[in-house]
Amino acid sequence: MTRPPLPAAAGGGLIERRSFLASGARLAVAIPLAAAGMPAPAQPPLAANRPEWMKTLGGADQAYGGPSPHEGEVVRRTHTRAAGTAGFSTWRTPIQDQRGIITASGLHFAVHHNGLPDIDPARHRLVLHGLVERALQFDVERLLRYPMVSRVQFLECSGNTAANAMSPTAMDVNAQELFGEVSCSEWTGVPLALLMREAGVKPTASWVVAEGADGGSHQRSLPTSKLLDDAIVALYQNGERLRPSQGYPMRLFVPGWEGNVSVKWLHRLEFTDQPAYTKDESGLYSEVLADGRIERFSFAMGVKSVITHPSGRQLLPEPNGFYELGGLAWSGHGRIVRVEVSADAGRSWADAALHGPTLPKAFTRFTIPWQWDGKATTLMSRATDEHGRTQPTRATWKKRYAAHAFNHYHAVQAWRVHKDGRVENTYA
Amino acid sequence: MTRPPLPAAAGGGLIERRSFLASGARLAVAIPLAAAGMPAPAQPPLAANRPEWMKTLGGADQAYGGPSPHEGEVVRRTHTRAAGTAGFSTWRTPIQDQRGIITASGLHFAVHHNGLPDIDPARHRLVLHGLVERALQFDVERLLRYPMVSRVQFLECSGNTAANAMSPTAMDVNAQELFGEVSCSEWTGVPLALLMREAGVKPTASWVVAEGADGGSHQRSLPTSKLLDDAIVALYQNGERLRPSQGYPMRLFVPGWEGNVSVKWLHRLEFTDQPAYTKDESGLYSEVLADGRIERFSFAMGVKSVITHPSGRQLLPEPNGFYELGGLAWSGHGRIVRVEVSADAGRSWADAALHGPTLPKAFTRFTIPWQWDGKATTLMSRATDEHGRTQPTRATWKKRYAAHAFNHYHAVQAWRVHKDGRVENTYA
Repeated sequence: MTRPPLPAAAGGGLIERRSFLASGARLAVAIPLAAAGMPAPAQPPLAANRPEWMKTLGGADQAYGGPSPHEGEVVRRTHTRAAGTAGFSTWRTPIQDQRGIITASGLHFAVHHNGLPDIDPARHRLVLHGLVERALQFDVERLLRYPMVSRVQFLECSGNTAANAMSPTAMDVNAQELFGEVSCSEWTGVPLALLMREAGVKPTASWVVAEGADGGSHQRSLPTSKLLDDAIVALYQNGERLRPSQGYPMRLFVPGWEGNVSVKWLHRLEFTDQPAYTKDESGLYSEVLADGRIERFSFAMGVKSVITHPSGRQLLPEPNGFYELGGLAWSGHGRIVRVEVSADAGRSWADAALHGPTLPKAFTRFTIPWQWDGKATTLMSRATDEHGRTQPTRATWKKRYAAHAFNHYHAVQAWRVHKDGRVENTYA
Repeated sequence: MTRPPLPAAAGGGLIERRSFLASGARLAVAIPLAAAGMPAPAQPPLAANRPEWMKTLGGADQAYGGPSPHEGEVVRRTHTRAAGTAGFSTWRTPIQDQRGIITASGLHFAVHHNGLPDIDPARHRLVLHGLVERALQFDVERLLRYPMVSRVQFLECSGNTAANAMSPTAMDVNAQELFGEVSCSEWTGVPLALLMREAGVKPTASWVVAEGADGGSHQRSLPTSKLLDDAIVALYQNGERLRPSQGYPMRLFVPGWEGNVSVKWLHRLEFTDQPAYTKDESGLYSEVLADGRIERFSFAMGVKSVITHPSGRQLLPEPNGFYELGGLAWSGHGRIVRVEVSADAGRSWADAALHGPTLPKAFTRFTIPWQWDGKATTLMSRATDEHGRTQPTRATWKKRYAAHAFNHYHAVQAWRVHKDGRVENTYA
């Protein structure tokens, strides 16, 4: 195939995007009909040989639509952490199969501490009490009458990508396994600021203890300043009522902060003047540092990115072929303003295109065109947010934490591309 | 309950939003715990009397999550237009149960001309031919390698709200029945501009005929200028591959234009120098005007809005109560810049708050606080887009079209609120 030379953006075959779009260069991934043994230009080439679905009336649709049965492998994958804790389970999003920034609700990740409770919404109550002027109780119907806001925002488990934090050698796993504890949806609910005003929260109430109605009552302490800032009691996800897996009939949603503080099945907010030091916040969600000190209440999720196509355990079908490299970036602190990509193991970097709207504390999709020359190489991405925060290398991240620490890992991710097209997780 | 007076934005109880938020006024919809027979401030009021789901370990989640069984009434509703045309069916979105701007994919409306084909993606092909330098064929895998874009955009059937166009008296139906042929999703796919460059579409190709692979081959003619502007071959909806109901494995997506031109199960694009005048574009989707002339190729959807809460056949639970009025606005021409709401049958209007981001050719959510005085009244909304286009009254719209015309109806919608709280469709 003849192809004009494409302007380079960096080493390893990265292509300068604007020049590329203006160049009129063909990507030559499609099959010319002439090569497929058909005359071109042609009459409808399928007319003489139509598949059976073009010859019959189609079937009935359904009241609640579902995915194609041909996409049955695109599901959440589960892990039960340890024997004796069957209530603790993680359900990971297939982010390698996703495009855009919205995660379909049926594929949104979940981590359950005590299994999935079956709550009757007619009997569920939310109570605000403690350091308040008026302790209040809301049933679902009354809460639905309050003013609501909607925002597209990510949610990430503090333990996402733990395998790369802990494993001495890079495990050969896919993006879902490594990065599947992060998703992004449109969340709609009642601002906490409004409910707190209604209850008359006292100035001495610097903390709140949020509790879920799951068996075991998952509890977390949060500073009230964050609740006043941008937290909501979420009632809807992607336009429909929350699903059981996301806390039906209501959850706390705390933008940009580690997922476990967005307490699902929320039934109680107790305003206090100090944290409760609950089991989970003193144990699982405290970070042990390299010098032995413990970091508590490490809420905000760091700047992070991952190339999702191609990614671990995928296969590039064609050497010397054109590919669009793409992935996701996010920051618990605000907007993503830059994603750099390297196709030569970090020797040179090029700015990827950010697909708008780039929303705060939301996924941002990035892409860059790539002409693979068929040689082994390493792909990497590095995101920067509006506050200038960026991603550390794995070595830098490891220096700060104890060897067995795994929460809040957000180092630059590297994928090794082998000559045969296999893509593999690697520590660059 | 004591309550400070709330600043009015217009007649009928509409409240000025900023003053209201700054006022510290309580909405008093929640139940004070003291009134509920519990001491306040209190220890966890549910501690002594926990529901059964707080006393046991929860159940297992599922690989592909679904809605709560308690929300089983929130589904698409179907209509089969006429006996003998069983292949034609409509599936309407429950927009009265939606918040935010994203429609969950399982609830996205659909109109099928020939039923739902069961397509094997491995055997599906997209062909570009006709007035091109190189006729091209794409299988799904190759098309997935092309650069893609994502956009949140609405899709609306040209016949949405037909009942209010045609029926001499206002039918007492809900918002789903009247307005359910519009939805909004994040659509991801390959820009037509890229595929057209690849095929070398000739300058004489001013039209394209798009054909679906359904039995019956739904066909529409479109100007190539629109395809070059912003149309895509959509492969993903809300982060996952298109569902069968939306054209799996691929559909044309033509932003802002009547839904039937976004041809589902797309398998052929023939570039031509004139429209094909296919069955549907000469019949169902041509508009008969009041003077007997026929308007063909009336593609763009007009500016439109509807209050979804409260809306038809709902019941306001409390006279003299606080409510947030809210709804959706959209325009096939661009962004929504203003939505006015009236709570006194159009005598006075107040600007509703628009919830950002306000994206072009997408749903925009609007809200305004409302203190209902318990008297019968009429609620209305009127949207304006960035080009200054706005909504006509029903009478103005009717003047332009023949009595039996029903496509492209986008007049101001009115809901009558009765003294007993019932909400009913009305022609104001």
